[in-house]
Amino acid sequence: MKLTKEQQNEIKNQQSQTNKTRRVTVANLENILFEAIPVLDHGFVRVIDYMGDDTSIVQAARVSYGKGTKQVSTDSGLIKYLMRHWHSTPFEMCEIKYHVKLPIFIARQWIRHRTANVNEYSARYSILDKEFYLPSQKNLAAQSKINRQGRGEVLQGEQAEEVLHLLKTDAETTYQNYEKMLNQKYDGSTIDENKTGLARELARMNLTLNTYTQWYWKTDLLNLMNFLRLRVDHHAQYEIRAYAEVMLDSLQKWVPITYEAFMDYRVGGLEVSSKGKKVLKKLINGENISMEDSNLSKREWNELMNSFDLKDKLVD
Amino acid sequence: MKLTKEQQNEIKNQQSQTNKTRRVTVANLENILFEAIPVLDHGFVRVIDYMGDDTSIVQAARVSYGKGTKQVSTDSGLIKYLMRHWHSTPFEMCEIKYHVKLPIFIARQWIRHRTANVNEYSARYSILDKEFYLPSQKNLAAQSKINRQGRGEVLQGEQAEEVLHLLKTDAETTYQNYEKMLNQKYDGSTIDENKTGLARELARMNLTLNTYTQWYWKTDLLNLMNFLRLRVDHHAQYEIRAYAEVMLDSLQKWVPITYEAFMDYRVGGLEVSSKGKKVLKKLINGENISMEDSNLSKREWNELMNSFDLKDKLVD
Amino acid sequence: MKLTKEQQNEIKNQQSQTNKTRRVTVANLENILFEAIPVLDHGFVRVIDYMGDDTSIVQAARVSYGKGTKQVSTDSGLIKYLMRHWHSTPFEMCEIKYHVKLPIFIARQWIRHRTANVNEYSARYSILDKEFYLPSQKNLAAQSKINRQGRGEVLQGEQAEEVLHLLKTDAETTYQNYEKMLNQKYDGSTIDENKTGLARELARMNLTLNTYTQWYWKTDLLNLMNFLRLRVDHHAQYEIRAYAEVMLDSLQKWVPITYEAFMDYRVGGLEVSSKGKKVLKKLINGENISMEDSNLSKREWNELMNSFDLKDKLVD
Amino acid sequence: MKLTKEQQNEIKNQQSQTNKTRRVTVANLENILFEAIPVLDHGFVRVIDYMGDDTSIVQAARVSYGKGTKQVSTDSGLIKYLMRHWHSTPFEMCEIKYHVKLPIFIARQWIRHRTANVNEYSARYSILDKEFYLPSQKNLAAQSKINRQGRGEVLQGEQAEEVLHLLKTDAETTYQNYEKMLNQKYDGSTIDENKTGLARELARMNLTLNTYTQWYWKTDLLNLMNFLRLRVDHHAQYEIRAYAEVMLDSLQKWVPITYEAFMDYRVGGLEVSSKGKKVLKKLINGENISMEDSNLSKREWNELMNSFDLKDKLVD
Repeated sequence: MKLTKEQQNEIKNQQSQTNKTRRVTVANLENILFEAIPVLDHGFVRVIDYMGDDTSIVQAARVSYGKGTKQVSTDSGLIKYLMRHWHSTPFEMCEIKYHVKLPIFIARQWIRHRTANVNEYSARYSILDKEFYLPSQKNLAAQSKINRQGRGEVLQGEQAEEVLHLLKTDAETTYQNYEKMLNQKYDGSTIDENKTGLARELARMNLTLNTYTQWYWKTDLLNLMNFLRLRVDHHAQYEIRAYAEVMLDSLQKWVPITYEAFMDYRVGGLEVSSKGKKVLKKLINGENISMEDSNLSKREWNELMNSFDLKDKLVD
Repeated sequence: MKLTKEQQNEIKNQQSQTNKTRRVTVANLENILFEAIPVLDHGFVRVIDYMGDDTSIVQAARVSYGKGTKQVSTDSGLIKYLMRHWHSTPFEMCEIKYHVKLPIFIARQWIRHRTANVNEYSARYSILDKEFYLPSQKNLAAQSKINRQGRGEVLQGEQAEEVLHLLKTDAETTYQNYEKMLNQKYDGSTIDENKTGLARELARMNLTLNTYTQWYWKTDLLNLMNFLRLRVDHHAQYEIRAYAEVMLDSLQKWVPITYEAFMDYRVGGLEVSSKGKKVLKKLINGENISMEDSNLSKREWNELMNSFDLKDKLVD
Repeated sequence: MKLTKEQQNEIKNQQSQTNKTRRVTVANLENILFEAIPVLDHGFVRVIDYMGDDTSIVQAARVSYGKGTKQVSTDSGLIKYLMRHWHSTPFEMCEIKYHVKLPIFIARQWIRHRTANVNEYSARYSILDKEFYLPSQKNLAAQSKINRQGRGEVLQGEQAEEVLHLLKTDAETTYQNYEKMLNQKYDGSTIDENKTGLARELARMNLTLNTYTQWYWKTDLLNLMNFLRLRVDHHAQYEIRAYAEVMLDSLQKWVPITYEAFMDYRVGGLEVSSKGKKVLKKLINGENISMEDSNLSKREWNELMNSFDLKDKLVD
Repeated sequence: MKLTKEQQNEIKNQQSQTNKTRRVTVANLENILFEAIPVLDHGFVRVIDYMGDDTSIVQAARVSYGKGTKQVSTDSGLIKYLMRHWHSTPFEMCEIKYHVKLPIFIARQWIRHRTANVNEYSARYSILDKEFYLPSQKNLAAQSKINRQGRGEVLQGEQAEEVLHLLKTDAETTYQNYEKMLNQKYDGSTIDENKTGLARELARMNLTLNTYTQWYWKTDLLNLMNFLRLRVDHHAQYEIRAYAEVMLDSLQKWVPITYEAFMDYRVGGLEVSSKGKKVLKKLINGENISMEDSNLSKREWNELMNSFDLKDKLVD
């Protein structure tokens, strides 16, 4: 992530402003406001704006005239209660806005979360930056043999080098040809005065999916948690998880009480099916129960046993 | 609208806080923050929180690193352009939160705008306030004879008095019986120590639709404008228009440039159909054109003629 | 629920039509199409239209050229997998439309589910039916003493009679005065030729919240399940649960494989928090664990013990 | 667009099924159900399923027990009225589902319409088809000199050939290297038995943005019209317009009355601002009015004059 001098100044400029407000503020989040937190090789996450804090959830749940807080312990109890019983609307009363730089193939995963507001940098209107994602060696994983949409071992030696070389060369070549078609360099300078450039809305189709794009992304706290719950999960693709983890950190700074409840009930929690519940009951009562008797599929059985560290009960 | 002492203090308490923030602020909106602006006989609108200002729209449209503003005139030009060409996403980047007290039958109209976040005061959980809407005499309109969902002349004399009397008596009686069923007064005091109260979630069904409720309502700027466009219109029911007008005023204080564009292109604007356009062309060219030749229905013809003050062309 | 002769004929008329289609059809759901299934004393649920079946979920998940089905067992396995891992979009590919008659106070709960399409009978435009909900004696519950938004014991004897009398009298009186203000009877006939009626949009405010309204309500399968999950739960108010149960039955007729997975993973399932998981681990290992050591609140502890029928571990 | 034998059979198979239903059906739409209608060089649009027809809009608007239709002329009048006055909810009562094959850079534009349900072919799970979009010569436009996000003249001669050559070569090369990294050919066959393939979720990043993807896309009639209104417009990029036009045709087959109203009030219609209205009034009255007096910007003035074919009033 290389910010230009001008970009750095624009960020510093915003960070140095001190405005007065009657709205609730969150000191820990203000501290990182506007900062470009690096993700992957050229990406970043910036918190641009926010509305509300933990007390806003309580205030809305109570439809109160004053602030939410009576005392911290009461607020915390209510927020946990709301989280546990899947109350959703009070968490929608807080809002956050991010500026994110990310590879296009990750943007395509991300955009599937529809309950958010998005403004993406327009490649019809502007030339995209000359930046593309290249995985570090330790993230260069082989296709998983057991999970059709997962990763297996890390590639080694020659093959790893070959892959990186291909990714790099193809991204560079296609970007150069993008410039050639535009008849403009990435910095806007004309290449050949006697030529006309292809329309930007067409030339962009030559770029590879690891090219970086950027957007403003704004969502409410409920939908942020829905996003994070899925994207910090170990089933999520590493590259989007890298963004989710930085955002999870901003969640903790913003609404620490909600964060704690979120980690306890959602991220660290577990859903047990009706059939799974019967299995657990037997285990608690010290009764014997086998996969065959449980009516669970092998996959479900193993997921359940793994959740409770019952390695000896795993089935091949 | 009678606020209790405690409510007034809670409001003052919030208004007196001064916090520091790096976020953009809007002085004109900060001035009215938390204030209960009266609407109808017992209702109010309070602005509770907001995110962003006019420059945030520009900032998101440009996906910029710094503030939106280069200079006011540029921002204004861009905002007008976005409004004129129905660009929607940049306007979604601002958010506002209201606390509203309103009669239930109006809440039922309002909630049809689904793209917003709502927390309503729960009558399963709490006792509703003893307040109900009674129209002022000048708003006591007869059913329109030409528009099945509109109002005609204002009722006069004895009939007006009778209507007001009925509304008042029925609201009072049903509220008293609500208390009787609950075995509790509106202030929470028990009526008869030897009796059990009916569940609040059941007792509430006895209340009339002019009983006041309240909610926190949060939406983005785009959807606020969609709401206002329909609800400040003269086709909207007077009682919801009264709320929309107060909120239109808060829009002007919050995002003055957007407000201006909104009034020019949306509220004061006009949609002309393909057939209507042909009529206007002929009129501009000084050609004759009659309703029969226009392929417009009588209703459409008259709406068009009215829009251009061509009273002599109206058709019965 | 009394349907007029005309309404009955309209329903029969639709039920007797046989059209040919290349779309997938569901015989069990076709059987109850258009039928008014009674709910509460005057309400109903009618299935009006639907799109897709179980195979449509599979078809969309695979983005396939043909039907979803390869064989039923494969489809079933995939649907369970999708449900278990909270995949949402394939379930959005089926759609259903209901016509519902319901008391206004229940309509107000229902409408909080925003991801649906709604057309409600307009009381600005038309006169509402003279029908209001009166609970049967066994549903006349007292306020719960332990849950602020729940019910306790059923009211008995004199008090029950008094409540029913008040509900009935107030609903009848306010409806009569509604007619008086409109200067029209429920059947549209004029009361006094020399009087003008109050605008319908105003007169409606005199009605009580147990008056019946009706609407067309359309949603996709995912959001239908979200609705049902919350509304068939024993925490839901009895009156909305009565509707949810009839709709749950239509879900079973429509998409039997999805229904089964839904009952196993959602309705009959359980969420366990991170802390709760630790408690379960200890119980499975036969270790001692007390509420104090668990870091669970008393409420959480008891909920967990109840889920596994460990009555002896409940804490007062 | 080359469908495999198997895909053709799957389509024929579905087209040959005849099911009986009590639901409303639309013969003209049934005729093209499942058919792959070609768009661009390798893309297609297939209508997969639908719910409702013109009468369903009327039925929902009236919340009726029977079919919408009383008689066609009444329905048509109501639908036009609803369209003219921006009533939205009745149009949400119809639903349609498409299977679309399209280049990724167009999918990225399309997905910005969030009020729809989408299942996209997963490149984490499967290998993408070896197909990429190459513009035909007449669509190879230069960057517009007056509109930053538009096209100008068509490229000619050598330069056109060069662009096409670059697009083709880069797409082929990057696809070959995608296969090499996967260690699998597009048909799933292994390339080198001694090598491990890179994870599909990583390898895909090497593909160019003109690679074809496919999805199931389902939306209601209102949001379909919102999509079409923007995407059949001449400001829309040619490549997405090509899809919109095929879908517009399916709209006409599906709901012919709504289609007609849509073309009259939306596609062929015009929004006039408050200031623009004043200009039109003067023109109708034969008064002089210049751009300077109008308070319109040059751009707005010219747009307005163009709309009414007043070429002599255009300003440079």
